Parts: sequence; C-alpha cells; structure tokens
Amino acid sequence: MPDIISVIRNRRSVRKFKDKPVEDSKLLRILEAGRWAPSGLNNQPWRFLVIQDKDLQSKISRYTKYGRIITGANLLIVVLMDTADSYNRDKDLMATGAAIQNMLLEACVLGIGSCWLGEIVNQKSHVQKLLELDSDLELLAALAFGYPACKPISCRKKLKNLIIYPDLKSKDNKSLYRDGQ
Amino acid sequence: MPDIISVIRNRRSVRKFKDKPVEDSKLLRILEAGRWAPSGLNNQPWRFLVIQDKDLQSKISRYTKYGRIITGANLLIVVLMDTADSYNRDKDLMATGAAIQNMLLEACVLGIGSCWLGEIVNQKSHVQKLLELDSDLELLAALAFGYPACKPISCRKKLKNLIIYPDLKSKDNKSLYRDGQ
Repeated sequence: MPDIISVIRNRRSVRKFKDKPVEDSKLLRILEAGRWAPSGLNNQPWRFLVIQDKDLQSKISRYTKYGRIITGANLLIVVLMDTADSYNRDKDLMATGAAIQNMLLEACVLGIGSCWLGEIVNQKSHVQKLLELDSDLELLAALAFGYPACKPISCRKKLKNLIIYPDLKSKDNKSLYRDGQ
Repeated sequence: MPDIISVIRNRRSVRKFKDKPVEDSKLLRILEAGRWAPSGLNNQPWRFLVIQDKDLQSKISRYTKYGRIITGANLLIVVLMDTADSYNRDKDLMATGAAIQNMLLEACVLGIGSCWLGEIVNQKSHVQKLLELDSDLELLAALAFGYPACKPISCRKKLKNLIIYPDLKSKDNKSLYRDGQ
C-alpha cells in the first residue's frame, strides 16, 4: 500500500516557486484529489477556480499580505464554498479542509509545492468582486502551486499534547503517546 | 512516489466493522497522520480523544441517530477543537477537516475502515458533559474505525460541475474538465 504517512509528514508549505508551469495533467490530478473528499451528506460544497494568469494573480495579490506567494505561483486554485449547496457551515468548512488537504497531498506526490493561503479571506468581499463571482460563492482559501524553489521546514506539537484523557476513558493507554513524538 | 490518488478515490465510509480490535501500532499511525495536518499560523487546534470501550461508546451512541456505527466500532476517535488555541473559527475548522482527512486516508492504507460522523455535534453539549471535557474543548466530529465488514460504494459530482469559470479567467481550459469525469 502507498506510504501516505511519509507524504503527510514531509509535505511542507512552499512559498517560492521555480519559473516552470504546472502541467495540465498534474493540475487535473490535483483537482481530482479534491473532488473525492468526504462531506456531510455527500453535499460536496467545494468549488475550484483555476488561475494561471500572472496579471490576474497580481490583481488578487493586493488583497493579502502574502501577495508575493500568489504572484510567484505557477498555478492558483481559489477554493470556494457554494453556499447554495451548504447545509451546515461548520461541517462544510471541515469537508472543504479535507478537499484542500487531498489537493496538497496529491501535489506533493507529483513533485509540486503548495501553500494554503487563508489570510486572504479577510478581504473576501474584494476578491469575490474582482473575480466577478456569483453571490452564492464564498472565498475560503487560495492555494498557490508550483515547482519548489526551496526546501522549507516545519514542526508539530507532540502527540502527547494533542491527546485528551477524560476521567471516564477506561483504557489507560497514556503510555502509548507519552514516549511518542 | 506513493499512489495517493488511488487511496483518495477508493476510500469510502465504512459503517459496519468486524469484531476485531485495531492494533495500537495502527492507532498510533492514524493519530500521527492527524498530527501532521497544516493549520493557519500552525496553531494545530485539533485534539483527539481515543475511546476503545464499548460501554462508553454505548453511552455516546445515544446522542446520534448513527449510534449503531459508534457501538459497532472497534475504535472511536473523538475530534475536538481546543478553542483556547483557536485564532479564526473558519480556518480552524478547515484545518481540523484536513487533520481528519489525513487520519481517514492513513486508516485506509492500513486496511482499517472509517466513518466520519458529524451529526453527533447537534448534541455536542451532552457529549461534552458525558466525557467531562474542559470547557475549552468543543466537539467537532467522531471518527469510527474498525476492520471493514462490508464494501460500500459512493460517488462524486463531475469535475466540470465543480469548476468555476469567471469571465475574467483568461486561460480557456474548460475543455480540460469538460471531457473529464
């Protein structure tokens, strides 16, 4: 079986990209990965807007302090929620997060770096206007893709700091995590 | 590189499980996959409560109409958000969705079926009380795991129905998706 845990562990946000286009075949695989995420009642509220246009990227970049990542990307996937297809905002947001993660992982496997940009939603009304989106479409994130020009690092909390132990939990497997990472 | 797209496409919600425990080594890998999800400002708002206790599962099962999946599971991971670590609810929900998807994918690779249960959050205050959780911990989902006793099917919208084409998008690659799935 595929070693997904290695991809999950080694994927990092890439913020600098080579001047090399992302092939259509790879773009399609990234979108396909997003398409197959799970969602509550299988409502699939996510929508994807694909941008490979430096002029338009430059216009969008004005609405986030991370604009340089957007202008430097070879491919931008703007992730939207179709609020007409939404049935529970919290669950739809989690489902869209799952779709995004699928895309980031698949990109990583294809040798494509990615950066999940969330800060831009602070200016969502401006971006939605710029992109002339229907009023049902809400900006949730922008994903920048491209061949990596650098090798970034990151870290995570230790597992023992993520595990909750209520008194009611009968099986004492704290030791499982205590010695872990 | 690992063939993640096949796992993404073939993973399905499993609602019936064999009477066979999930090994601790597999549980740890599932949690490890969740741990390495991306989050805004790397705030990692997710927390995991691991339950392998049929009595407790039975008590929890009363708070969802999908209770039978909870009682039938060999492992339940209750996914919580630490609201004290939250900085933006929308982004934290998406990040937690990414962590959940990591766990579902890793479980699939390990031969473990899973079901993401969201309906239970309608009764979150009762579940939080039952589990004696700190007030900072908010129930976001329950993930049921176990060795699959059935082979479920599912489907997704076609890619062409997920792609948004604003007038501004200069590169006309509609044909890319039109003939796709």
